[in-house]
Amino acid sequence: MYDGAVQDLIDELGHLPGIGPKSAQRIAFHLLSTDPTDVRRLADAIITVKEKVRFCATCGNVAESEQCRICADPRRAEDLLCVVEEPKDVVVIERTREFRGRYHVLGGAIDPMNGVGPDDLRIRELLTRLGDGKVEEVIIATDPNIEGEATATYLTRMLVPLGVTVSRLASGLPVGGDLEYADEVTLGRAFEGRRTVS
Amino acid sequence: MYDGAVQDLIDELGHLPGIGPKSAQRIAFHLLSTDPTDVRRLADAIITVKEKVRFCATCGNVAESEQCRICADPRRAEDLLCVVEEPKDVVVIERTREFRGRYHVLGGAIDPMNGVGPDDLRIRELLTRLGDGKVEEVIIATDPNIEGEATATYLTRMLVPLGVTVSRLASGLPVGGDLEYADEVTLGRAFEGRRTVS
Repeated sequence: MYDGAVQDLIDELGHLPGIGPKSAQRIAFHLLSTDPTDVRRLADAIITVKEKVRFCATCGNVAESEQCRICADPRRAEDLLCVVEEPKDVVVIERTREFRGRYHVLGGAIDPMNGVGPDDLRIRELLTRLGDGKVEEVIIATDPNIEGEATATYLTRMLVPLGVTVSRLASGLPVGGDLEYADEVTLGRAFEGRRTVS
Repeated sequence: MYDGAVQDLIDELGHLPGIGPKSAQRIAFHLLSTDPTDVRRLADAIITVKEKVRFCATCGNVAESEQCRICADPRRAEDLLCVVEEPKDVVVIERTREFRGRYHVLGGAIDPMNGVGPDDLRIRELLTRLGDGKVEEVIIATDPNIEGEATATYLTRMLVPLGVTVSRLASGLPVGGDLEYADEVTLGRAFEGRRTVS
């Protein structure tokens, strides 16, 4: 529809997740009327991220050297390991400042519909990490959806025989939420996981 | 939150229109796990668009040389000029294959709330173009919203004294639409612009 370079850019932007043809067009025209140095900074950031950032050899989190910030930190407890799906989950958990252990990033969840099996995740690396017996508890913090639950069940079955404590994050009502708007499954889980307070 | 390069990319992506922090993060992680040649192609497309694409000296449309494809085409009628807000409007009108004239792209619409006045649009260039008397009809095809209507009114007032025919695109019910869901203003316009069929 457009002349060469504009259409090329719209096509490339359209490959990004969550960017449809209309958004791609909007972003392309935004870039056309943006200051060249700002546009250059975006292009550089894209190139730099591919050059500099890799995945931590130990846990699979994003890192700018062999090991990520957390794995390289000697103050983090070695006996507590939290298993998550993606690097962004690490950020979310770090933000709570509640967790003092280390992470293991699977790189996704078991999802047969999209052709993701256990071998596509960093499960073998997890078992290797557990080999030295330092880890005492593995907290499985996969997403509370079908794929996350399937992954958690699979991992639990693999880890329990190794003699390690396996735990899962609590399911229940979100703090600040409203009972009226809770779905049945969440409410069911909240009953199941109820705590005695007196 | 993230290490240097990832956070830089998220920040840069967050400056794009319609990209919030969550989308920026999603796109950044998508790029991290994308093949480097594909990522390079996106960065190159961004750089190329700024190097190659400029705005047509005559009409203000996007162009890869001094004049855009349409202004350079001798088969396009010189007596018919369609005034639009943005280059994307040219594409939309071209898609109808109904219009055989030329375009003038204003580069926006009068919008005092966002500090856009008549001097920020390519109105002076429009008057210069009309100077040689070749254009007989100016079709104002600004958006049918408050800013577009204000721009159309302003242009009409400037163009009528020049002795040129000024027209506006018809307002009315969208084809394939449903009378029940038409808003009052559109329905009012449809009555106003009704045509005798017998």
